[in-house]
Amino acid sequence: MKQKLVAGIDIGGTNTTFGLVDSKGTIIYKETIVTEHYTLPENLVAVVVEHIQKSITGYADKYELAGVGIGAPNGNYFNGCIVFAPNLKWKGIVPIAKMFEDKLKVKAVLTNDANAAAMGEMIFGGAKGMKDFIFITLGTGLGSGIFVNGEMVYGHDGFAGELGHVIMFSDGRQCGCGRKGCLETYCSATGIITTYKLNTQYSGLKTITSKYIYEKALAGDVDALDAFNYTGDILGLALANSVAYTSPEAIFLFGGLALSGDFIFKPTIESFEKNLLNIYKNKIKILPSELKENDAAILGAASLIWNEIK
Amino acid sequence: MKQKLVAGIDIGGTNTTFGLVDSKGTIIYKETIVTEHYTLPENLVAVVVEHIQKSITGYADKYELAGVGIGAPNGNYFNGCIVFAPNLKWKGIVPIAKMFEDKLKVKAVLTNDANAAAMGEMIFGGAKGMKDFIFITLGTGLGSGIFVNGEMVYGHDGFAGELGHVIMFSDGRQCGCGRKGCLETYCSATGIITTYKLNTQYSGLKTITSKYIYEKALAGDVDALDAFNYTGDILGLALANSVAYTSPEAIFLFGGLALSGDFIFKPTIESFEKNLLNIYKNKIKILPSELKENDAAILGAASLIWNEIK
Repeated sequence: MKQKLVAGIDIGGTNTTFGLVDSKGTIIYKETIVTEHYTLPENLVAVVVEHIQKSITGYADKYELAGVGIGAPNGNYFNGCIVFAPNLKWKGIVPIAKMFEDKLKVKAVLTNDANAAAMGEMIFGGAKGMKDFIFITLGTGLGSGIFVNGEMVYGHDGFAGELGHVIMFSDGRQCGCGRKGCLETYCSATGIITTYKLNTQYSGLKTITSKYIYEKALAGDVDALDAFNYTGDILGLALANSVAYTSPEAIFLFGGLALSGDFIFKPTIESFEKNLLNIYKNKIKILPSELKENDAAILGAASLIWNEIK
Repeated sequence: MKQKLVAGIDIGGTNTTFGLVDSKGTIIYKETIVTEHYTLPENLVAVVVEHIQKSITGYADKYELAGVGIGAPNGNYFNGCIVFAPNLKWKGIVPIAKMFEDKLKVKAVLTNDANAAAMGEMIFGGAKGMKDFIFITLGTGLGSGIFVNGEMVYGHDGFAGELGHVIMFSDGRQCGCGRKGCLETYCSATGIITTYKLNTQYSGLKTITSKYIYEKALAGDVDALDAFNYTGDILGLALANSVAYTSPEAIFLFGGLALSGDFIFKPTIESFEKNLLNIYKNKIKILPSELKENDAAILGAASLIWNEIK
């Protein structure tokens, strides 16, 4: 009998990465193309499908394609459509899951990129066997995926789990969503850069990255350390509040900022425990994601199908 | 064949109310005793059991007892224990579900009072057929029950859904939980009384109730109207944030304050829509509970069993 393989596709504003993943989470094929080269989604789908078909043909004696998992900004699980994604060129509503199903004749499942990564953490990462956990991606923004009773929380409309847009301060920093004070304006790469610039009254021309701030912190720079502490303070409070909703067993942090180790984990955990309601104290773990940065997108997307097959 | 009846028991700091409920939510028998008359939980259980047995004997040709649902402060679904409830005299961990099971020889299910009422809303109230909703009780404090994918959110430890203790302002009002700025210090009967007293610089001896503020508002009193607006402002923001977690189809408001009609619903809904992320706007209903104030506790408790039988 042939073994099953799943295609995992991560459509991002810049690149689209896709690959073939076996049941153990081994990526046996991987490819990246530039999303914005494709002015129509049909064109991108055609190219991805061609690559996947070609690749799986090479393993035709051993493997068969069992499904396609897709992570994309504003990807909706219920209708399989990318819905008005602000950082994609394709406007309106794109029925991306159906487009892949029609071409590849297997089931396709779509959700947003953070949800896909959260599923990856459960199927292939540190959340294996957990029924209730929260997964946070600290990238340009702050994304999240929430699991309750062993299932992804999609909400009634497929758009649950937008913790980056919880309002922390009513008159806080301007957010890209049009409102003010959203969590991601503080706790993300963008957020810590803003904080660092405010700390240092930075007005230079050099583009500051979160990696730069990390390196400064490593060198003992007080403003950089303070930026991490401030970020962790707010993130810890937000996570403590999120516990009051779903009381998870653990909260996973993923993404660039989460790779800063103690610089971000220490102040986050301190603030988290300080702000937790008594009944929750000292029993909820804040952990680094066990997904590798480079593989997470494909593994996460593929895990959407593996979760249904398992 | 005999029809099934379920016992619903609501153990409160002051009174314990219990009754027998049929599958349609009709309460065919109802009784109230004073909780604090019973220094040991065993004594209260014995009296409640006696009443229930006596009552069901009267219907023995028609009905049989199918289970016992219990709502109690700090009631834990997973272990069936009341765990260190600050407003009950019984200290420590009380295995209340097992105590009822041993005496009545039927299944007993326990959860906290707000969760029980939320279940009541789904089985017998306005949330019938909904899979994702949030239920808020505005009483002395603010309690909540969250449903996701048609199931109650208990969390990994049985303590999920404590929205009253989401911290809204880090240096806000002192909360009974020991922390500051919790939602319930603003949005509850206690909260609106505090707001009204601050508005009026009240320092009199008369005990102010939320009903008094409601009557003042009815009479057009500016400070009372302002207290409702302030409460609704904060509640609307908190509910908008809660949507970012579970994206519910509706949010139900229950309890004394929720009976104030437009005084509380109008500012809450205004603030809610203003503070919602774009993708959620104009599609989530904020509704008054359809459970009758006097029956909700028993119906809610009984619905815990009806949910499992259905």
